[in-house]
Amino acid sequence: MTAKSPDPRIAVFAGSFNPYTIGHADILRRGLEIFDRIDICIGVNFNKPEAHAQARDRLAEILRLYADEPRVTVNIWGGLTADYAKKIGAHFLLRGARSVKDFEYEREMADANRAVFGLETVILLAQPELSWISSSLVRELQAYGQDVSQFLPPIPQ
Amino acid sequence: MTAKSPDPRIAVFAGSFNPYTIGHADILRRGLEIFDRIDICIGVNFNKPEAHAQARDRLAEILRLYADEPRVTVNIWGGLTADYAKKIGAHFLLRGARSVKDFEYEREMADANRAVFGLETVILLAQPELSWISSSLVRELQAYGQDVSQFLPPIPQ
Amino acid sequence: MTAKSPDPRIAVFAGSFNPYTIGHADILRRGLEIFDRIDICIGVNFNKPEAHAQARDRLAEILRLYADEPRVTVNIWGGLTADYAKKIGAHFLLRGARSVKDFEYEREMADANRAVFGLETVILLAQPELSWISSSLVRELQAYGQDVSQFLPPIPQ
Amino acid sequence: MTAKSPDPRIAVFAGSFNPYTIGHADILRRGLEIFDRIDICIGVNFNKPEAHAQARDRLAEILRLYADEPRVTVNIWGGLTADYAKKIGAHFLLRGARSVKDFEYEREMADANRAVFGLETVILLAQPELSWISSSLVRELQAYGQDVSQFLPPIPQ
Amino acid sequence: MTAKSPDPRIAVFAGSFNPYTIGHADILRRGLEIFDRIDICIGVNFNKPEAHAQARDRLAEILRLYADEPRVTVNIWGGLTADYAKKIGAHFLLRGARSVKDFEYEREMADANRAVFGLETVILLAQPELSWISSSLVRELQAYGQDVSQFLPPIPQ
Amino acid sequence: MTAKSPDPRIAVFAGSFNPYTIGHADILRRGLEIFDRIDICIGVNFNKPEAHAQARDRLAEILRLYADEPRVTVNIWGGLTADYAKKIGAHFLLRGARSVKDFEYEREMADANRAVFGLETVILLAQPELSWISSSLVRELQAYGQDVSQFLPPIPQ
Repeated sequence: MTAKSPDPRIAVFAGSFNPYTIGHADILRRGLEIFDRIDICIGVNFNKPEAHAQARDRLAEILRLYADEPRVTVNIWGGLTADYAKKIGAHFLLRGARSVKDFEYEREMADANRAVFGLETVILLAQPELSWISSSLVRELQAYGQDVSQFLPPIPQ
Repeated sequence: MTAKSPDPRIAVFAGSFNPYTIGHADILRRGLEIFDRIDICIGVNFNKPEAHAQARDRLAEILRLYADEPRVTVNIWGGLTADYAKKIGAHFLLRGARSVKDFEYEREMADANRAVFGLETVILLAQPELSWISSSLVRELQAYGQDVSQFLPPIPQ
Repeated sequence: MTAKSPDPRIAVFAGSFNPYTIGHADILRRGLEIFDRIDICIGVNFNKPEAHAQARDRLAEILRLYADEPRVTVNIWGGLTADYAKKIGAHFLLRGARSVKDFEYEREMADANRAVFGLETVILLAQPELSWISSSLVRELQAYGQDVSQFLPPIPQ
Repeated sequence: MTAKSPDPRIAVFAGSFNPYTIGHADILRRGLEIFDRIDICIGVNFNKPEAHAQARDRLAEILRLYADEPRVTVNIWGGLTADYAKKIGAHFLLRGARSVKDFEYEREMADANRAVFGLETVILLAQPELSWISSSLVRELQAYGQDVSQFLPPIPQ
Repeated sequence: MTAKSPDPRIAVFAGSFNPYTIGHADILRRGLEIFDRIDICIGVNFNKPEAHAQARDRLAEILRLYADEPRVTVNIWGGLTADYAKKIGAHFLLRGARSVKDFEYEREMADANRAVFGLETVILLAQPELSWISSSLVRELQAYGQDVSQFLPPIPQ
Repeated sequence: MTAKSPDPRIAVFAGSFNPYTIGHADILRRGLEIFDRIDICIGVNFNKPEAHAQARDRLAEILRLYADEPRVTVNIWGGLTADYAKKIGAHFLLRGARSVKDFEYEREMADANRAVFGLETVILLAQPELSWISSSLVRELQAYGQDVSQFLPPIPQ
């Protein structure tokens, strides 16, 4: 009665991750309880060399972060997330939602990805105490000289 | 790199299901792509004998509906959903969300079930064309003599 | 280039109107700029004689209110609004929305009435200064002895 | 009792329509059941010659689309929508709303257009199965080489 | 430049407080940084003797809770909150908001209390980690035999 | 029982105020009933000389507006609002909210300012008849040659 479905369940966790926060890390951790493998897909605009270089730095950091977790892979991608998911054989998109505004955006994206590409989106709600932490907040605090290390997962050296 | 996590992933799909609509059936179908087993838990107030009898009828119908799907189980429960999940060894709650109002309610429940009981909630967004179909709408249409068969999954006899 | 469409545009403006407030009257007034005729449909539960009697009183008051407006008709109805609209040959439902919560409810109803009955719903947003006035607020103020005449359109004697 | 109001009801349906999707076309079609004439007003920034040229292409396409519908007119405008409405004698703005986010934006615009310019806004809710289709989604899919013809109304040649 | 305004700022913190949770206590604590005095007003229906008796028990508990805080007063009231505020000379209503749904409700109430009674409402947002804790959740957990002491402020004996 | 708390309650009312509307002025007026002193903090990007010059003009205007109100101070600031609040010894941030969208944004900011900087945010809801007035609306109307004086508080010369 509890036979496992045959195929591994692969999810893409896409974002700009600029930076990758403890909020992202928490969604990833919880996603690993659901999926067999999660591919972190760092979106980048290949036409902007500087952005590309920064994305490579983020890739290196996230790789170190999950060096001991064989079920996590990390890549950079400059196109549609859906095309990436097809390419690696993923049927799922993993998303975190922090607010009603997020929810509305995610619904629109999920509807499009289901109707156009046949992909299923799984939404995990941010834990309340992490719900106000976003990459843009971290960038703003950083721009004004604040220490933001409390918002970033500790990267093994 | 795609080794499966050892334990079967069991989710509880709880509701009053009065009636069980094609909206519920669609969430269940999509949930089966994610989970190894889903237990449909029909909530009932055991102090109301009439409600209990109706719940048993719904149980029989839903059982027939999934007679050929060994990964679906169906039960009646008169207590907290979280207690039921613990009882059957389920770590997940499967929920459908049809609107922002649903989302806010689900967030509150998900936060409580995570903090108090350690349960994870997975939310699937209703497909747009099913988003306006609810049990209460079906009951209201039925009360005024409308044919509601288009909103109910066909039960094998 | 501005030929009129042949048929009169008839809308049903349904509600319990307990009481009919200046908010309702404002939606009706604006609706009359859009539709050729509006039928105010007072919903009532015929199984409750007291409620039926009260609805008849409201009917009399609203009739007096629009005695000089031949494009407004008023009726009592105990069934589905959609059935009423079919009965009187109305293709439109007129609705006011005061908040996001209203909007979500109206969307669900509008989707159902379009899909099941082929009816079109036209939503007018409450004017900001009337947005907090509801029948339930008026009833509550009245229950505690407040003068509520400022929330009710003056009925000609 | 169903005498028609004397003046033709003219609505402006304004947007950048970049591109004009099947979602827009559906709102227009439903609007034609309500209004006697609808003027599609393509907003453009006259200071950007390239944008102006593109708007002219869109104008030509939309004109072909409604070549057989005398109640639809199409124009390009570089100013306030309200000024355009005054200019052509339109009393109504026709808007589609796809989500709560849309609703909030439309409410703010409707309040301003009513208070400042005396214009009435009529909101039609997108049909659920079209609710996730937006011009920006179509542009993004197009930018990545996807076929987007399913989102565009077939233009007669 | 920092002269104090002459009158003490008095706020009413009204609710059924069934029970008074750590969420309520946190709003009260933060409110005391803003107001000179806060009156906790336990709403009750005097027509229900049993409810009245329970409200008196809650009154006794909340009084013990704030025995050492002279700026907090506690009372039971069976009428409109606004009438109570007038009676004790309070110009402010203190409210906590946990969600968008709360926000919409509070906006409607605040608009009414400002327009009808000249009262100002101050909304404090629940801290994220307390945002899912409500009286109704506590009552439901309690009804099913859960220990809910973690949600209740410790009452001095 | 109504002893005043010892320290003056100082709030920062921050924004770009481009321009300072009657909506801002209304929040400030209501804030003065709550706080002992309010500091209007005009945010500016010091790297943009033109923006800085414009902010100085706004500063001069707002100063004239509150020339007779000793409890209002006005300043320009190019950094984090929270740093400014610390600098002037303010414990509170005063915010106006006009919509659910505003509410969600304010919640995120309030959570961050509380958790990172220990600041409390007090939200006042815009009065309904001012709820659609924003700086960006005023700027847009102005850009198209509309008279916007009705949206701006009259500045004493």
